[in-house]
Amino acid sequence: MKSCNDDGGTPKSTAIPTVGTAKISNPIKFGRFVDDEEDAVLVNISRKKVEGNAKTKKKPTHIYFEPAGPREKIYYDPSKTKCAVVTCGGLCPGLNDVIRAIVMAAHHEYRVPSVLGIQYGLAGFVPEQGYDVIELTPDFVSRIHEFGGTVLGSSRGPQDPEVIVDALERMNVSILFMIGGDGTMRAASKVVEEIEKRGLSISVVGLPKTIDNDINYVSPSFGFDTSVETAAMAIRGAHVEATGAPWGVGLVKVMGRDAGFIAAQSALSCQEVNFCLVPEDPFDIDGENGLLAALDARMKRRGNAVIVVAEGAGQDMLEESGKKDASGNVKLSDIAALLKREIVAHFKAQNIDISLKYIDPSYIIRSVPANANDRIYCSFLGIHAVHAGMSGRTGLVISRWNGRYVHIPMDLVTKGKKRINTCSNYWRAVLESTGQPVSMKNT
Amino acid sequence: MKSCNDDGGTPKSTAIPTVGTAKISNPIKFGRFVDDEEDAVLVNISRKKVEGNAKTKKKPTHIYFEPAGPREKIYYDPSKTKCAVVTCGGLCPGLNDVIRAIVMAAHHEYRVPSVLGIQYGLAGFVPEQGYDVIELTPDFVSRIHEFGGTVLGSSRGPQDPEVIVDALERMNVSILFMIGGDGTMRAASKVVEEIEKRGLSISVVGLPKTIDNDINYVSPSFGFDTSVETAAMAIRGAHVEATGAPWGVGLVKVMGRDAGFIAAQSALSCQEVNFCLVPEDPFDIDGENGLLAALDARMKRRGNAVIVVAEGAGQDMLEESGKKDASGNVKLSDIAALLKREIVAHFKAQNIDISLKYIDPSYIIRSVPANANDRIYCSFLGIHAVHAGMSGRTGLVISRWNGRYVHIPMDLVTKGKKRINTCSNYWRAVLESTGQPVSMKNT
Amino acid sequence: MKSCNDDGGTPKSTAIPTVGTAKISNPIKFGRFVDDEEDAVLVNISRKKVEGNAKTKKKPTHIYFEPAGPREKIYYDPSKTKCAVVTCGGLCPGLNDVIRAIVMAAHHEYRVPSVLGIQYGLAGFVPEQGYDVIELTPDFVSRIHEFGGTVLGSSRGPQDPEVIVDALERMNVSILFMIGGDGTMRAASKVVEEIEKRGLSISVVGLPKTIDNDINYVSPSFGFDTSVETAAMAIRGAHVEATGAPWGVGLVKVMGRDAGFIAAQSALSCQEVNFCLVPEDPFDIDGENGLLAALDARMKRRGNAVIVVAEGAGQDMLEESGKKDASGNVKLSDIAALLKREIVAHFKAQNIDISLKYIDPSYIIRSVPANANDRIYCSFLGIHAVHAGMSGRTGLVISRWNGRYVHIPMDLVTKGKKRINTCSNYWRAVLESTGQPVSMKNT
Amino acid sequence: MKSCNDDGGTPKSTAIPTVGTAKISNPIKFGRFVDDEEDAVLVNISRKKVEGNAKTKKKPTHIYFEPAGPREKIYYDPSKTKCAVVTCGGLCPGLNDVIRAIVMAAHHEYRVPSVLGIQYGLAGFVPEQGYDVIELTPDFVSRIHEFGGTVLGSSRGPQDPEVIVDALERMNVSILFMIGGDGTMRAASKVVEEIEKRGLSISVVGLPKTIDNDINYVSPSFGFDTSVETAAMAIRGAHVEATGAPWGVGLVKVMGRDAGFIAAQSALSCQEVNFCLVPEDPFDIDGENGLLAALDARMKRRGNAVIVVAEGAGQDMLEESGKKDASGNVKLSDIAALLKREIVAHFKAQNIDISLKYIDPSYIIRSVPANANDRIYCSFLGIHAVHAGMSGRTGLVISRWNGRYVHIPMDLVTKGKKRINTCSNYWRAVLESTGQPVSMKNT
Repeated sequence: MKSCNDDGGTPKSTAIPTVGTAKISNPIKFGRFVDDEEDAVLVNISRKKVEGNAKTKKKPTHIYFEPAGPREKIYYDPSKTKCAVVTCGGLCPGLNDVIRAIVMAAHHEYRVPSVLGIQYGLAGFVPEQGYDVIELTPDFVSRIHEFGGTVLGSSRGPQDPEVIVDALERMNVSILFMIGGDGTMRAASKVVEEIEKRGLSISVVGLPKTIDNDINYVSPSFGFDTSVETAAMAIRGAHVEATGAPWGVGLVKVMGRDAGFIAAQSALSCQEVNFCLVPEDPFDIDGENGLLAALDARMKRRGNAVIVVAEGAGQDMLEESGKKDASGNVKLSDIAALLKREIVAHFKAQNIDISLKYIDPSYIIRSVPANANDRIYCSFLGIHAVHAGMSGRTGLVISRWNGRYVHIPMDLVTKGKKRINTCSNYWRAVLESTGQPVSMKNT
Repeated sequence: MKSCNDDGGTPKSTAIPTVGTAKISNPIKFGRFVDDEEDAVLVNISRKKVEGNAKTKKKPTHIYFEPAGPREKIYYDPSKTKCAVVTCGGLCPGLNDVIRAIVMAAHHEYRVPSVLGIQYGLAGFVPEQGYDVIELTPDFVSRIHEFGGTVLGSSRGPQDPEVIVDALERMNVSILFMIGGDGTMRAASKVVEEIEKRGLSISVVGLPKTIDNDINYVSPSFGFDTSVETAAMAIRGAHVEATGAPWGVGLVKVMGRDAGFIAAQSALSCQEVNFCLVPEDPFDIDGENGLLAALDARMKRRGNAVIVVAEGAGQDMLEESGKKDASGNVKLSDIAALLKREIVAHFKAQNIDISLKYIDPSYIIRSVPANANDRIYCSFLGIHAVHAGMSGRTGLVISRWNGRYVHIPMDLVTKGKKRINTCSNYWRAVLESTGQPVSMKNT
Repeated sequence: MKSCNDDGGTPKSTAIPTVGTAKISNPIKFGRFVDDEEDAVLVNISRKKVEGNAKTKKKPTHIYFEPAGPREKIYYDPSKTKCAVVTCGGLCPGLNDVIRAIVMAAHHEYRVPSVLGIQYGLAGFVPEQGYDVIELTPDFVSRIHEFGGTVLGSSRGPQDPEVIVDALERMNVSILFMIGGDGTMRAASKVVEEIEKRGLSISVVGLPKTIDNDINYVSPSFGFDTSVETAAMAIRGAHVEATGAPWGVGLVKVMGRDAGFIAAQSALSCQEVNFCLVPEDPFDIDGENGLLAALDARMKRRGNAVIVVAEGAGQDMLEESGKKDASGNVKLSDIAALLKREIVAHFKAQNIDISLKYIDPSYIIRSVPANANDRIYCSFLGIHAVHAGMSGRTGLVISRWNGRYVHIPMDLVTKGKKRINTCSNYWRAVLESTGQPVSMKNT
Repeated sequence: MKSCNDDGGTPKSTAIPTVGTAKISNPIKFGRFVDDEEDAVLVNISRKKVEGNAKTKKKPTHIYFEPAGPREKIYYDPSKTKCAVVTCGGLCPGLNDVIRAIVMAAHHEYRVPSVLGIQYGLAGFVPEQGYDVIELTPDFVSRIHEFGGTVLGSSRGPQDPEVIVDALERMNVSILFMIGGDGTMRAASKVVEEIEKRGLSISVVGLPKTIDNDINYVSPSFGFDTSVETAAMAIRGAHVEATGAPWGVGLVKVMGRDAGFIAAQSALSCQEVNFCLVPEDPFDIDGENGLLAALDARMKRRGNAVIVVAEGAGQDMLEESGKKDASGNVKLSDIAALLKREIVAHFKAQNIDISLKYIDPSYIIRSVPANANDRIYCSFLGIHAVHAGMSGRTGLVISRWNGRYVHIPMDLVTKGKKRINTCSNYWRAVLESTGQPVSMKNT
């Protein structure tokens, strides 16, 4: 990558994989902050990785993330800095908290005169869409964290990076905060490229959002804790329904396209779940090891059952719809409908009328305000995003890793997705909690 | 106690329509209570009804309900009395509170030695089903009110009254408390008839349960307040979703087969509802006065909309399924699916991709524990049911009317269902709150 | 009743005790509404009162309240009407809901051009205080109901009625909505008098607010249900603490100066309360029937106890402070401190170190947002207040009685306070629920 | 440290400071689990600590914690193992979850035949106290996590280690789980010593509990998240009260004897806090930099203020009470009373009657059930405690560090307490959020 010296001070993408400290040519001594002593945060902290292989005596390569936080020297002159915020993709608890924290930090910590709100996701950059830009004042955002959703609105799908950078130039934006999923982070990378191509001094800072908690090096993603709390409420309902009728089955579908974290975590928090089905652990419906056999045994032993299924579970058993949504995600086939049909039929064939109650709490989960834990997490993400942007960093996302807030190169988080490791203590705890068979796959 | 053969001691069905005081031949002076001074509660309290027609000078007939409460004289000898409780039909918040109150009042106010819990509704009386009877001790029920659902389980559908009375005789039950909807109250009436036919001294006291709040002379039904509170949560989610996307529509389906009280009441409590569709107010989908026209106008004016629809709304526009569930209710066709399809298509035809989010919170609503208000209401219902039963009354239900707890003849509550009066201030308040057209029916 | 002709069309105080229909000289045919068929609502509905004394054959006098609701004819020309709202006294859940409903109804039902918000109670009318008047637009109030407290602020204490009417004249206000306790309603009556004295056409409509639920003919007051729900949370905490330690006592003080409704109602909703102490039921601390003796027995039998005490309970045992607060209420002496001291000492004398945990949730209770039930109740109060004001009525308050919304003459609600009837089924239910002695008074 | 070989297989205290793997002489191949690949978890993960001092070239010493989890080889024969659980000290959300998880893991993962519950803390070991031991079956504990507090009861204060070990011997307990604060962990160490002295094969596993979140190497402690959520509710109330009256001040006292984490964290989650006072940051009340000066400025600028104070803040300004509670903690003087007095007097001297509302939510905070996040955390702590005990480890506590569950030597967590670092980004975020001066100490 080209050095920053020869391109007029353009902020550079955070380097990979060593600690991402983009060189800045003409930093301003801000004086307000002293750099944090914590120089860098180790990524892998298990002894094997730290000490390296004892046998081969090969020295280990330690990979670190740069700690987030205020910097002694900043790149942008606050009095001339204009920021912009955009929220993309599906709703997630905490969006308003992140927006609020960005606005408050920009105004109160740096006295930045203006933070713009781009409406309805990346579409808000497209003049033809006709969406107004909102001036996000401290007063405007002061209580937005008490409501779910995003005051900016959101939308799915990419937009032409050139159009976006045109808009940034036109609005004279210095720092763009993009809150969104991995599609948005990929879009952000393209915006960074376009900015570099044009030699502009615009920073792009990502704030990874995923209700599925499936973004690499983000652990857990904001809003996840709140989502689990809300999913737990629906599961408790399913349990009450299942035990309230003879042959009662409660079936709850939760979010989780490729990663079943919400299903697994809420199963752990609700001790009443008997089957937790996730995309990472394929299962069969029929056969002697299949779900129906296990469910049959449970029902005859205890008279009721609660099943929590991630929307992306068991997709191999369904015909692919082939369709994609506006974000480019493959439209999932409906595993809950399949389960419902098969379960009812299985018992019907034995002349048993089960009482299956199906609950899909997805939109309730997405739309609640953040709980206290997520509220604080989102505040820090927003504040650190502002610090990162003001320091001239670009092409990075803010995350929490090993308990510390860090800068992570944008490319790193979009290189694949986090999954439940089905060989871990974590998944084993889920299995112990549900009591379901270790595998429901016929070999 | 005198034998029941000469039926001079059989508890009598509460008389209709004057105050229901069943004659009791040999009441025991219990001494613990003094009769409440409130002798009877007027049913119709508007001046026109009280004063009668001024022109015709016709004297009005005043109808009263007997007040509920403990009686100075009781019919059953507490030390020899066995009670039984059964919960029937769909779940509703507060069932456990009613059960708990019955058990506590029977034990602590009368020192009744035994209260039996019949499992899984009327099916629990049928020996072939093999459900055990539970001994409901104060200790067993002490914390059940903190959980939703019913500890007894429930089921739909009637059973042979003869089989039920056989079971009561076999178990030596003196007072049966039946908690259920109007189907259950009709079954209760048949049980009362069968008891009278056999000349037995068994009281049957009904506790009307309906999450739809559609039982006559029950205002409102227990659990309704909690249901509205929970529905409101789902509606808030729909509002967040609707405003979080361009062309956002939030669609929430709530319970309400023939009466739209939950839809109306939760629309009143959530000021964000724009369309409230109930069975009592037929509407057209198409046409210049239809829903789509009104929704189209709203969407183009404000960019989003929240629709709350009772499950029984608009059934006239749907093909009848002809099927019935185990309770004998006609299976409703899916109005929400129809709305979804029609709304999406309507805007699609204009090349607008709306973002419609559908939420069905029904089973969450049914299964939450009662809130403080319903908890107290349910306690009083249970306590008053025990007082009514111990006093030898039978064939009546416990209700709250004009703010007082009263005895209502069982037949009266099953003679038709309560509906929203669409000419009332109440419905007008809903219309004002939503801003929807007064009628969405093309003449 | 004097005709309005001779006093320039001034709206008249609602008559007492027959139905309050102030004659209006020049009503406008508004056309928008048809008068509700319900002509009047009977106040006393027990048979004895309806039928009169059978022995003396004396015909009963039926007292009715006028039903609230829109009127076919209105007094004020909406296009020229300015309204004002003021909130007085202590906080109570639902204040913002009432404000919101008034603003929405005035704007949307009558197209009134302006509703002013008077800040910080009656003090807001006093120019020297320097509080700005707020323009309450539908946009301003649209989400205020999601927050506790009052957006207008409040204050205690009366202000000179002449100063208030001066302000109303200066601001050209036609209808003043006063939300407050009985002190405020008395102030409102004086404002009405001053208006009549000056021959002005200004309506004053009261909305009775009392967290203690102690206003006559208001049953229950708005916010009471929410208060009980919140008090119940504190009581659950006290129960957990009491059972979590050896010799554990949980002591909760709740609001209730002269009426113990919050204490009683929350005791009913939380089955864990063992002693409920209210102003209406005097008790002794010492002596063989006193609280300590009863508590001693409970503690030795069960090892723990939960006591809920209304702040106004047992004041006879305390030295009078003699002080009054700004509202003119006598400053209560601290019953909780006395109980704490006496209870600890009682057991200390037996060498028992009890673990007493004291919880005062008062300000948490007062400040929560209204629950769904109160939200709807407050909406109707606000809407009906606007209807009453627009129709030219004055000197009345809006209330719910026997389940209907009614107009009540202002004087009627300030003539004494509602109390718990300790000879009622209600109080008996509290005693049964707690298991405390029927009386803890040594004769 | 002595090898385990020569003392008959007694489980050994986990080694310090390297990874604590106590050698076990005769382990049983359990076969059910495979050891987790994660061999050890690095304690300090900042680059400076990992790489060592670049200048001195001194090689760093890496300190690791042993990962928690099941072991391939276990020490105790499950079929002959009896476990015991005791909860000590003040209540904290999550206690029942930990108890439940221990019981469930012992029964379901190891088929241990018996888990005993010791009642009322260490006092429960003392025969003279007469507390029964409870048999904790899976059925008994199945729903206890839905309630706050501890089903076992708790008490403060130490007991003679010899008496405790006598009881363990008498009851034939193999593994003792001690849940409590640092006093309890010190008591646990003494129990471990006594066990070693007697050469017994009894494991003692600690589960550190502190609502103040002030235990070393425990980050955060269980229940802390729930506490913050609940404290936030009280703070919201204080904000509503403060803004609801002229010159309104809301004062909230929360737990925090020596560490202000609850105050700081809840200030971060509630953006309405204006002053956060913690023990770690001494302040003056008077003087030009003191609290009153800052509060005065805030009040005159904004008209209201919310102050959150940890109970241990400002103790230097108060006379020492000299008393200690049963746990040996110095009884704190009442900082809130001092603040109340000083603040009211400060404004009174200016003829301003402020409206100060004081809220102490401590016992409500302590007694609520755990939220979903803490519920899962507590489950893992309990499960890992069982794994640690079964593997023969002793003298250790279970904790989460850098996001992993680990074993920590008992001595390490009692060697001092965790404090807020007032030079950290964390505290700076609190200051930015409240807007309070960086220091309120006159030099």
